[in-house]
Amino acid sequence: MLILKSHFKSRNGNLIIGELDVVELAKRFGTPLYVMDEQRIREKYRKFYAAFSSRWPSVLVCYALKANSNLAIAKILKSEGAGADVSSDNEMRIALQAGVPGTKMVFNGNHKSPSELKLAIENNVMINVDSFQELEAIEAITSKLKLRARISFRVNPDVQASTHPYIATGLRESKFGFDVASGQAFSAYRRALDMNNVEVVGMHANIGSQILEPEPFEEEARKLMALVVELKEKLNVFISVMDFGGGIGIPYKPEEKELDPNVVAERMVSVVKSVTEEKDLPKPTLMFEPGRYMVGDSGVLLTKVGYTKERPGIPTWIFIDAGMNALIRPALYGAYHHIEVANKLENKNDFEYNVGGPLCESGDFLGKNRKLAKVEQNDLVAVFDVGAYGLAMSNQHTAQSRPAVVLVNRNKAEIVRKRETFEDLTRLDQIPEWLK
Amino acid sequence: MLILKSHFKSRNGNLIIGELDVVELAKRFGTPLYVMDEQRIREKYRKFYAAFSSRWPSVLVCYALKANSNLAIAKILKSEGAGADVSSDNEMRIALQAGVPGTKMVFNGNHKSPSELKLAIENNVMINVDSFQELEAIEAITSKLKLRARISFRVNPDVQASTHPYIATGLRESKFGFDVASGQAFSAYRRALDMNNVEVVGMHANIGSQILEPEPFEEEARKLMALVVELKEKLNVFISVMDFGGGIGIPYKPEEKELDPNVVAERMVSVVKSVTEEKDLPKPTLMFEPGRYMVGDSGVLLTKVGYTKERPGIPTWIFIDAGMNALIRPALYGAYHHIEVANKLENKNDFEYNVGGPLCESGDFLGKNRKLAKVEQNDLVAVFDVGAYGLAMSNQHTAQSRPAVVLVNRNKAEIVRKRETFEDLTRLDQIPEWLK
Repeated sequence: MLILKSHFKSRNGNLIIGELDVVELAKRFGTPLYVMDEQRIREKYRKFYAAFSSRWPSVLVCYALKANSNLAIAKILKSEGAGADVSSDNEMRIALQAGVPGTKMVFNGNHKSPSELKLAIENNVMINVDSFQELEAIEAITSKLKLRARISFRVNPDVQASTHPYIATGLRESKFGFDVASGQAFSAYRRALDMNNVEVVGMHANIGSQILEPEPFEEEARKLMALVVELKEKLNVFISVMDFGGGIGIPYKPEEKELDPNVVAERMVSVVKSVTEEKDLPKPTLMFEPGRYMVGDSGVLLTKVGYTKERPGIPTWIFIDAGMNALIRPALYGAYHHIEVANKLENKNDFEYNVGGPLCESGDFLGKNRKLAKVEQNDLVAVFDVGAYGLAMSNQHTAQSRPAVVLVNRNKAEIVRKRETFEDLTRLDQIPEWLK
Repeated sequence: MLILKSHFKSRNGNLIIGELDVVELAKRFGTPLYVMDEQRIREKYRKFYAAFSSRWPSVLVCYALKANSNLAIAKILKSEGAGADVSSDNEMRIALQAGVPGTKMVFNGNHKSPSELKLAIENNVMINVDSFQELEAIEAITSKLKLRARISFRVNPDVQASTHPYIATGLRESKFGFDVASGQAFSAYRRALDMNNVEVVGMHANIGSQILEPEPFEEEARKLMALVVELKEKLNVFISVMDFGGGIGIPYKPEEKELDPNVVAERMVSVVKSVTEEKDLPKPTLMFEPGRYMVGDSGVLLTKVGYTKERPGIPTWIFIDAGMNALIRPALYGAYHHIEVANKLENKNDFEYNVGGPLCESGDFLGKNRKLAKVEQNDLVAVFDVGAYGLAMSNQHTAQSRPAVVLVNRNKAEIVRKRETFEDLTRLDQIPEWLK
């Protein structure tokens, strides 16, 4: 069964991205190739932003660069008005290069080094503080720099969301944040009040990633707003930025349904509204950190079939030129990515295949037992929904060069990341004197 | 409990690699830092080679570059006399740069592109052919180039070895090789005999990786030699190179025992000897492709503790500056890597910790529930046995720069791979005209 999301089309049996035929793209740019659809990214941003901004006066959507930190992608989102959620100094630099001002950035992570904190403070980036020691480090750095730091605390509301354990970040045992239930989060706020150079502006949580039901978000809002009220009542602290993190997923499997941001917004905003009205609190800015939602389904990995191989008793293997090197999600999370033969969309998907990558490792497959059109050598295979955590988590296992990335904007296409060469892989290697 | 393998020492509570103190190494080169011990690599090669060459007249040990394709490491093994097992054109180029002649190389993989095959053929590299279509591709390329190709067939003997399914490559359902039981492998040899430009020299299997018991290797030898006899008797084909692949593991966990290559050699050579004598066959060259065995336990990942964090009800988290970006084996395979506080080896390991990396992802940990010496900020943490599939499989998740690699040779230490910079991460990105 052929399943294409609505932003893709088929023409003469070929997959169309934007207005361009992937067979032409493969000819022009080679394979394996990441293809990103600019208009789709803009569409997703607008939908997300509208869902919240139509219900609440002050909303800032910070694109989570960890999903895809390509500079062109960051620029697209910046041009839509997005801020940036960064989790390393390098991501901060990319966001700055894209033109995002520090005041529209938030710096996340459990291990922010002194030099990273310095960069954030100098650029007036809001820091989501993750531990007491980090708070002390910030106070020390600000004293030295004679600057103030805008901070927020990452709190851990212990919300259960049904997702892969590796990306379920809101559970109590996770490495992130301050525990809410035990009063640890409250203590963090109290400690910050004693400090001279930190300005407490926000509260942050992140309950996970790839969540497709609204309930966990509502629970998150409820738990966080309860802490906001407690801080107001006991410490007279006003939280002006509620950073609810990311987490809205995308449907990877054909049977999965999209989670409409309007549904999430309706529930979360209701909670914030009722609490602020009831307690007579000023209206905070609502901040969000979507990554996957923004760019996940705009990306396609375009690969070519090198060989097919029949083996008794198992589905025929097809070997494509990208594997767990280019896209590690299937191997790492057991993630499903939909696959189609991109030059045979009009054929029936009547044949069962295992889809292997080019690496010398059994874990190197992108799909097993997939129904596809009959596959032959040199066919093009499209792997869908790879715009997030695709190239961003790619590696060079068996010294494979990583794919190029092409950005498609309607009828235009340009390289936004060049294909790696042998030189790119080895330029950092050097030989000590005694081995020359 | 402090557990150090015999090639490491402790001095004043600090870990010593070669003759050098890791506290000094961290000061001089920064963290996170991969440290490789040259003498240990040489020792492992010699032990492996001696085990087989003392029992058989013709032995070629091809170092599997996929474990660690750093040029200096390749040079060390070349200088010991090793050949190279390569699984991409880039690995072939690295091995050539290291001085390994093509005649001492073997090219593996299920997806060899035409340009990769061409490079192999031009350099007279033995090709372990993995599918019928690949065989036809080789014949086509050799005809065009007017060259001959030395080939071997990767056969799949369906040997069970207790290891992670991702690295158990000898099972019948794996993507690799020609099925032996159904006669597919036999057919491949017969097909090759009809070809003009391929010279059948070998037989290859690989039953997996990280195997710590000798039995699967003996079973492999028995199954392959049975096919050798069948080929001799039915097709009068003589197999002059028996490439038994890699697979000998290393003890990662304190309770695991080393698999002595002498034990493996004794069993495998006995099989080959008895079959060749019984059937009056010439003695083939025995070829092996160890990767992890050669370089795994010579590598240490040296990291610094940024923060520690207490959380009610769970072990204290310590956050170090390297995680699943630098070493993905724990997240990907659930692999155990032994961890010690490298500047407190004399303290008792009386405290329980979770060891997290710097990435914004819950899967980013290198160990959980580990007994360590009491950890404080700025302590050095050593993660052991990372010489294989460490940097080779590393990524730049959340735009983290990958660690530098230092080679230690007794009292000398030099960078053999420079630390990545922001420029290294972003130099391939470019902005299309319409976004400027």
